[in-house]
Amino acid sequence: MTITELDAATIAARIAEGSLRAEDVASALLDRIAVREPVVRAFAAIDPDAVLRAARAQDAGPRRGVLHGVPIAVKDVLDTADLPTAMGSPIFAGHQPRADAACVALARAAGALILGKTVTAEFAFVHPGPTTNPHNPAHTPGGSSSGSAAAVAAGMVPLALGTQTGGSVLRPAAFCGVVGFKPSFGLIHRGGLKLMAESLDTIGIFARRVADVALLLPVLAGLPALAPAAPRPPRIGVCRVHPWALASQEARDVVEETAARLADAGAAVVDVTLPPSFDALLEVRARINDFEIARALSWEYHAERPRLSPRLGAAIEAGRGVTLADYAAAQAAAMAARAAFPAAMQGCDALLVPGAAGEAPEGLESTGDSRFQGVWTLLHGPALGLPVRRGVRGLPLGIQLVAPAGQDAALLDCGRWVDAALQPPG
Amino acid sequence: MTITELDAATIAARIAEGSLRAEDVASALLDRIAVREPVVRAFAAIDPDAVLRAARAQDAGPRRGVLHGVPIAVKDVLDTADLPTAMGSPIFAGHQPRADAACVALARAAGALILGKTVTAEFAFVHPGPTTNPHNPAHTPGGSSSGSAAAVAAGMVPLALGTQTGGSVLRPAAFCGVVGFKPSFGLIHRGGLKLMAESLDTIGIFARRVADVALLLPVLAGLPALAPAAPRPPRIGVCRVHPWALASQEARDVVEETAARLADAGAAVVDVTLPPSFDALLEVRARINDFEIARALSWEYHAERPRLSPRLGAAIEAGRGVTLADYAAAQAAAMAARAAFPAAMQGCDALLVPGAAGEAPEGLESTGDSRFQGVWTLLHGPALGLPVRRGVRGLPLGIQLVAPAGQDAALLDCGRWVDAALQPPG
Repeated sequence: MTITELDAATIAARIAEGSLRAEDVASALLDRIAVREPVVRAFAAIDPDAVLRAARAQDAGPRRGVLHGVPIAVKDVLDTADLPTAMGSPIFAGHQPRADAACVALARAAGALILGKTVTAEFAFVHPGPTTNPHNPAHTPGGSSSGSAAAVAAGMVPLALGTQTGGSVLRPAAFCGVVGFKPSFGLIHRGGLKLMAESLDTIGIFARRVADVALLLPVLAGLPALAPAAPRPPRIGVCRVHPWALASQEARDVVEETAARLADAGAAVVDVTLPPSFDALLEVRARINDFEIARALSWEYHAERPRLSPRLGAAIEAGRGVTLADYAAAQAAAMAARAAFPAAMQGCDALLVPGAAGEAPEGLESTGDSRFQGVWTLLHGPALGLPVRRGVRGLPLGIQLVAPAGQDAALLDCGRWVDAALQPPG
Repeated sequence: MTITELDAATIAARIAEGSLRAEDVASALLDRIAVREPVVRAFAAIDPDAVLRAARAQDAGPRRGVLHGVPIAVKDVLDTADLPTAMGSPIFAGHQPRADAACVALARAAGALILGKTVTAEFAFVHPGPTTNPHNPAHTPGGSSSGSAAAVAAGMVPLALGTQTGGSVLRPAAFCGVVGFKPSFGLIHRGGLKLMAESLDTIGIFARRVADVALLLPVLAGLPALAPAAPRPPRIGVCRVHPWALASQEARDVVEETAARLADAGAAVVDVTLPPSFDALLEVRARINDFEIARALSWEYHAERPRLSPRLGAAIEAGRGVTLADYAAAQAAAMAARAAFPAAMQGCDALLVPGAAGEAPEGLESTGDSRFQGVWTLLHGPALGLPVRRGVRGLPLGIQLVAPAGQDAALLDCGRWVDAALQPPG
């Protein structure tokens, strides 16, 4: 296996044991980027010389933590003290923050090497950047964390940070065929993130394997390493969610096939139907999102309106039209659904739902449909996306495992079992 | 009445009718600042020439909104595109943000004139800045929004923005003898605020009268102007809260006197006792606060540790020691208390509680005891502070009116009635 195919845990272990240098890793990834970046266009800012200097310094210096020497890419809505943070907007072109975002600082303190900033849709909303899908450049990589998903998928970096307000981590993870994770709301501090819908915005992770998510998550949360539970077959609830009919036949097939494979591997697999009130949650999320982003971008709207994309300008105006009463009702509905979600799980460790509506759509104008991720974002619980197989057009198809807020460690234990069960035999 | 004594609504009305120019207002306030600032030290950054230029431009230009020409001061943890934002820390000395915080942009868009940045305790925590109490410079103005409270109290500005995570708006308002208001959590978007304890941080207001809070709040929230309800005698619950015994005799007397005056004026006044589970909420708030601020300041802790105050460094280390299980239990207790709070109000429009533990303590080393404000911050509802009278040392004493989340407009209606009832006759 080449360095560009290694997962983060393996890289960390080899650097720790001395069989690999941080410089070798950085150098291999930079070579890979030089080859792939002209087509994939995953990076908004990268300084190869600085990366190599930092890697050499890590090889020469003391071990800083569990990610010592492991490269990580950072979505360009998170501040970095040594790279500009343009947020996918010409308004912030070349903007250099004074400090790292809290999660970036925590990753650095654990020894991670910040490889570069990745392309985001404008302010992590919908207007896309130039990134293409590494599996077919005529197709979207998904968004808004487009560059992070594509960089991991293209072998440019083993780990990347994203953010999700609707489906901005889990959808690009599905479209690009990598592991995606959105933790419980509030688990990773958002200091240094450009806040948009602040009751929804959540920092998330792209990786090659579930074990890498489990390695990075406690670092970003400022917590001790997770102690994985002994593997046990989980109880999985197959959930043919509200927008099920909007999913492609293939996306639905992947859920059904996965359920059958997990049952074969020993999981208890049951059908779970969410309460009818959950059918309204996509609309609830949209109302909260619109209200909050309209206020988030007050400076941009009043001082820099001509440099906002037409779509974002229109979304801000829509959000300004949402009444406080409607917003408050949406927040109350969200709180009620969060309270009802644990019981709705019917004793399952995770719900199994489609990763996205189907393969990544053709074209780069749209980052795709967020309706298969948005409800789980609203519910504030963890969501783990796993790639499963290719579809008819040769692009990845995946599933999500979701759980109520606070169940991050348990969902990762479940996900590790599922990940192993889904690996090809041998 | 001189210009420096006018409330914001009066200034706005006189500018709108043409009987006062924005330049006259700015000029009078700058003169006042020149006299008082050497002792009060309320400002972290101010550019008098730029203020006068902006005021003249407003006099010459079209009316922008309900705050046209009204000066407002901004706590130095909120970003401003035209003034540095140092956050009370040498680490950010001279730091110039690219953009305004969302609420600052909304105030500007409504015509407000940003007068300057006000002194904050280090990162809105406890290590104080140089501000003194305008009523006696040997006493603290309270904090962390020290400069905002002092500037309003000293006649330097009619309105100011603050933030509250524990008691950082309501305590300095009480100590300086001005109106303070902390809205419901989430009502004012926090984009461009230095996030600390992000499940508690709330942007608030300092003013001379309740009507000014009602004028500014919808501007900051991006909402239409509030339509005041017809005055009606409210139902007031006198709440001898958990730390009642920690309040000075005078602070308790002020609550009892106020209750009697409101009853005389026609309010229904009843005793309200909160559920016993609420006694733990100060500890719950402290645990959430410590956990979150430790993560918020990850970059400062890892990159700039020697330039953090010893108290803040110690608080970060305490917060790093809080387990995720303890933090999650605290969040669950907070959510349960928020859910229980409306019923605990026993039909009252507002609870009447002490504004602070007593008069502002002597000395500038401590900003005082946050135990009379912290529970209401944790409960996420609005809190309105009103000055009532002077204490034995000649410093202000006040009360707070508090209500459950979402009751902002109703609490301001109630507060306006109370404010009128507490004015001296004639």
